[in-house]
Amino acid sequence: MSINSFGHLFRLTTWGESHGPAIGCVVDGCPPGLELDEAWVQRFLDQRRPGTSKNVSPRQEPDQVRVLSGVYEGRTTGTPIAMMVDNVDARPADYPKDAPYRPGHADFTYDAKYGLRDPRGGGRASARETAMRVAGGAVARLVIPEVEIAAAVVEIGGEADESRWEAMLDDARAAGDSFGAVVECVATGVPAGWGAPIYAKLDADLAAACMGINAVKGAEIGEGFGAARLKGSENADAIRAGAEFDSNHAGGITGGISTGQAIVIRVAFKPTSSIRIPVPSIDAAGREVEAVTKGRHDPCVGIRGAPVVEAMVALVLADHKLLHRGQRG
Amino acid sequence: MSINSFGHLFRLTTWGESHGPAIGCVVDGCPPGLELDEAWVQRFLDQRRPGTSKNVSPRQEPDQVRVLSGVYEGRTTGTPIAMMVDNVDARPADYPKDAPYRPGHADFTYDAKYGLRDPRGGGRASARETAMRVAGGAVARLVIPEVEIAAAVVEIGGEADESRWEAMLDDARAAGDSFGAVVECVATGVPAGWGAPIYAKLDADLAAACMGINAVKGAEIGEGFGAARLKGSENADAIRAGAEFDSNHAGGITGGISTGQAIVIRVAFKPTSSIRIPVPSIDAAGREVEAVTKGRHDPCVGIRGAPVVEAMVALVLADHKLLHRGQRG
Amino acid sequence: MSINSFGHLFRLTTWGESHGPAIGCVVDGCPPGLELDEAWVQRFLDQRRPGTSKNVSPRQEPDQVRVLSGVYEGRTTGTPIAMMVDNVDARPADYPKDAPYRPGHADFTYDAKYGLRDPRGGGRASARETAMRVAGGAVARLVIPEVEIAAAVVEIGGEADESRWEAMLDDARAAGDSFGAVVECVATGVPAGWGAPIYAKLDADLAAACMGINAVKGAEIGEGFGAARLKGSENADAIRAGAEFDSNHAGGITGGISTGQAIVIRVAFKPTSSIRIPVPSIDAAGREVEAVTKGRHDPCVGIRGAPVVEAMVALVLADHKLLHRGQRG
Amino acid sequence: MSINSFGHLFRLTTWGESHGPAIGCVVDGCPPGLELDEAWVQRFLDQRRPGTSKNVSPRQEPDQVRVLSGVYEGRTTGTPIAMMVDNVDARPADYPKDAPYRPGHADFTYDAKYGLRDPRGGGRASARETAMRVAGGAVARLVIPEVEIAAAVVEIGGEADESRWEAMLDDARAAGDSFGAVVECVATGVPAGWGAPIYAKLDADLAAACMGINAVKGAEIGEGFGAARLKGSENADAIRAGAEFDSNHAGGITGGISTGQAIVIRVAFKPTSSIRIPVPSIDAAGREVEAVTKGRHDPCVGIRGAPVVEAMVALVLADHKLLHRGQRG
Repeated sequence: MSINSFGHLFRLTTWGESHGPAIGCVVDGCPPGLELDEAWVQRFLDQRRPGTSKNVSPRQEPDQVRVLSGVYEGRTTGTPIAMMVDNVDARPADYPKDAPYRPGHADFTYDAKYGLRDPRGGGRASARETAMRVAGGAVARLVIPEVEIAAAVVEIGGEADESRWEAMLDDARAAGDSFGAVVECVATGVPAGWGAPIYAKLDADLAAACMGINAVKGAEIGEGFGAARLKGSENADAIRAGAEFDSNHAGGITGGISTGQAIVIRVAFKPTSSIRIPVPSIDAAGREVEAVTKGRHDPCVGIRGAPVVEAMVALVLADHKLLHRGQRG
Repeated sequence: MSINSFGHLFRLTTWGESHGPAIGCVVDGCPPGLELDEAWVQRFLDQRRPGTSKNVSPRQEPDQVRVLSGVYEGRTTGTPIAMMVDNVDARPADYPKDAPYRPGHADFTYDAKYGLRDPRGGGRASARETAMRVAGGAVARLVIPEVEIAAAVVEIGGEADESRWEAMLDDARAAGDSFGAVVECVATGVPAGWGAPIYAKLDADLAAACMGINAVKGAEIGEGFGAARLKGSENADAIRAGAEFDSNHAGGITGGISTGQAIVIRVAFKPTSSIRIPVPSIDAAGREVEAVTKGRHDPCVGIRGAPVVEAMVALVLADHKLLHRGQRG
Repeated sequence: MSINSFGHLFRLTTWGESHGPAIGCVVDGCPPGLELDEAWVQRFLDQRRPGTSKNVSPRQEPDQVRVLSGVYEGRTTGTPIAMMVDNVDARPADYPKDAPYRPGHADFTYDAKYGLRDPRGGGRASARETAMRVAGGAVARLVIPEVEIAAAVVEIGGEADESRWEAMLDDARAAGDSFGAVVECVATGVPAGWGAPIYAKLDADLAAACMGINAVKGAEIGEGFGAARLKGSENADAIRAGAEFDSNHAGGITGGISTGQAIVIRVAFKPTSSIRIPVPSIDAAGREVEAVTKGRHDPCVGIRGAPVVEAMVALVLADHKLLHRGQRG
Repeated sequence: MSINSFGHLFRLTTWGESHGPAIGCVVDGCPPGLELDEAWVQRFLDQRRPGTSKNVSPRQEPDQVRVLSGVYEGRTTGTPIAMMVDNVDARPADYPKDAPYRPGHADFTYDAKYGLRDPRGGGRASARETAMRVAGGAVARLVIPEVEIAAAVVEIGGEADESRWEAMLDDARAAGDSFGAVVECVATGVPAGWGAPIYAKLDADLAAACMGINAVKGAEIGEGFGAARLKGSENADAIRAGAEFDSNHAGGITGGISTGQAIVIRVAFKPTSSIRIPVPSIDAAGREVEAVTKGRHDPCVGIRGAPVVEAMVALVLADHKLLHRGQRG
């Protein structure tokens, strides 16, 4: 099985390879009557688009989205919303089949799993797939107008001081190296009561959503790993009349259910695997070769990760809003 | 919706409240012909049982499991395996309905979600539910005999030196306070190729499985959050002939698919929320009250978390083994 | 995979073998706050209980249900509702392992699928499993108090005249033979708008639910197969002001969505496969033998099917009510 | 919720409206390495294409399929296969918004469910959606090369004599009326053991698949409703050495699992609802009006149903093949 759908009631299915003719998605389960046009989706796609600065991949993709179904006279109809983006700058010829497995990439594991793969630019494993998560997230936001979602890079290469990042990235680019990053996402306006108590805890669904983003290797809610270092008395969020809390160590979730406070998730992006510094590897025939990335690549893939994290959080919250009102009315 | 099932093909459904008559589970999708008896499951249940040392809850529960279906003459039949444990030490009278919402617990959020709840010992939100995850995990292990899974506490209250833990826990117990912990789980023997590329990435399913355990607030694979602080050149796992790797920063997973290396996941448990130090709170009527735990409680809930993490990892890996052979044959 | 769960949001999972210690189920996704006690469930179980007349199996089972979770002080809590019935009259010794495959039963196909099976009284394939569908259906009815569901046998052995059935069944019993039957179920009070337009059409979900009942080989909505013999002008249901319809050839569903009229489904039960007339068969070793049923059995399994059809219809409608309000609010 | 996906492991998701820019689908879970090109899919699409004879809708649609992902150098890669067909003959202007609800169509129920709908040619409820089922079915066939699937109309307007159909259809066309039909589908080569014993019985999944096709109101396996009129001794399929059967009343399925015999399903299509004979109805504003179809329409929608039934059967069988080997290896 090759699970390319996500969500319980509000579901996103994505398809497409990096250098195929197009990428696309289907959003199913969307409530009817919501105002939706291509400009709304485009606005979010533009935020993650490559080629917009020296710190992101130079691939030139207009990423012009088309909405192909599920909308009539500017409103969602409740039927599936299909969206598509053509791959304009696809250069399949740039990717020879006997290229080395790029360490840290999915080249080796796709071959191990499927016995064959589309080698062009990472194929299905390319971060290009995340464009369609952003498109799906744009629709999800319409389902939860009461919620405000904002994600930002809060750490690059272990450095939290934003003013130092530009120099670090310049150095990394010059050295052909890359940096990891931490993205923090805050969702405000979520009422108390969304979530599920056991296997679809809001923490679990949010973590899974973000761990499914390319290059993500960790996720934490509220204090997260920091909570493992605290005492119970330090980590306690006192509750006051009116269900006001003195603090938010819980990151807005207890028992898998939202508390009404801001939901806070932090996501760890590993450094871009594609670097100009050679790394020993093998090719599909098992021969030892050196993997080295040519041309320009993102010196920090996490920078483009923030809009994707926002989208995944929006998708999870929209889904849980519908789940909650399904059970509670 | 109130999702109490877990898994794609190999599915665990659990039920039961802390102070109801029993807790139980159903394991569906298990291959037929596997040797299974109650003693096998009991062995794992005994590892997480409360009342076994001064550092875990003193509740006296024999946790004697009964297998009620799906096994014939000592072998699984492919039909659902129901297991049940009676709640022997249930003391419903100990739990008044007008008790304060315990900060960090699910008391407040369950009321917010459902409008009512079983207040006895945390009801469904009690860590007692994890016994059935352990039972399900015992069955999962039979599906993946090629895999060895071992989890252990690697940090308590931020301290990695094991020799200091006993004194720390004695202090916490004396002060009525508690500590968080980090549990690390290593699975060896997983062949390359298990997992799914996009929304059920092995990292994502493992993280969700562990984030669904009570008190867990973070999960990371391989270097995890550490990878966000590394350079690409430092984080690269060079590959050698025979698909041997020089290192395992990836924690055994790239592109959501296993590499054949050890799978490494680390899980952050927050400190036990039930402490003897009073915390301001409210009750169900909204009145300001002090929440204070009486009697003994776990000074570090993470200690009993290790067998639960093992079980969840076993469930995910068994599921992905079946998914993989479904698609690949 | 061995799918023992049913439903999208309101889900029933059943477990248990005919001659194991017990059978049981878990109802997940039930809204909180509904009044539920064991007497309510028992009332429906008593309707399908064996041993109550000469026309149904003589097995003596009190079928006393216990509700083990998900209910607190007489109300559902939103957490999973586990129910269990002990197998009191289990007689595993009556079922030798080298018995012939009973034609029409699942004996042969279970062995083909799983390589082994519990041979005692049909094991998991026994109609005893339907008791738990009835228990689940009793809970489902609480979710849809606006709906009235009633099923009845409308045909036995092709005969629609009720007054002839008793003599026919006496003859069949004397001859060691059996009859098939048609059960019709009518659900009134379903508002217009429940259902889904494409792959979970209300017709499709109802048909699947009923086709999953033991011995069922056909299902039809409204005119059903009769519609295939009508002209469009005869089959048209004219609509009047106030969304009143002149007729109900559609059986209350168009485009997979309820019209507000009565939902009508008819279900075909094949004749009981267990008969005293010998039928050539083989045993597990492949040897040719004669299959012949000893002792008494149901001369018409469809008679006990009506309460099961009601239960399945209730489960589907409850599920679609929750699905609908999840999407529409 | 608005469930536009179908299948457990091998999943089809469809999207698109009759008069939107395009219709499409995503096939997920397909095994890798299967030879697939557009010509293969086109071959099946051409079988159901409108405009090919006087007995099917005159809409001129080339229905030229494009495969947009999941295939590399002529072989499936295991990643999602997206397919798309442009709506060339879309005429949105032909469909005024204040048109009467067409009795038997989904016009009224879509409005009841969603509060709004795309009125152009039935929108999402148009039989045009079935083109993508046929496309998905073409891929499914590649997964089960051991199975041969053939469906045919066996009855029109209650008449089984094929030689009379042409005259009947001419009469219906002249009178502006329509006929229902029965389609029978036979799948040979399915080995014993596919299916699931309780809630995804092969009968149930096949019935649901076919009941989800537009205009279908009944489904039966083997003797189906006929079995309800037989005695047990008449309906018994004697088994001989080598698991050969004397007859196939069971339609190739017992206990929800394939027997190795031919799988036989019959499906009832109601007469085309769009007729030139006026039927009283209302419009969206609730005003009483007459619904009358202008121009030409299918006098028997079942005729184009046969390739769709084949496709749905192929999808179910491919899914159960993967499910079976997931559990059994």
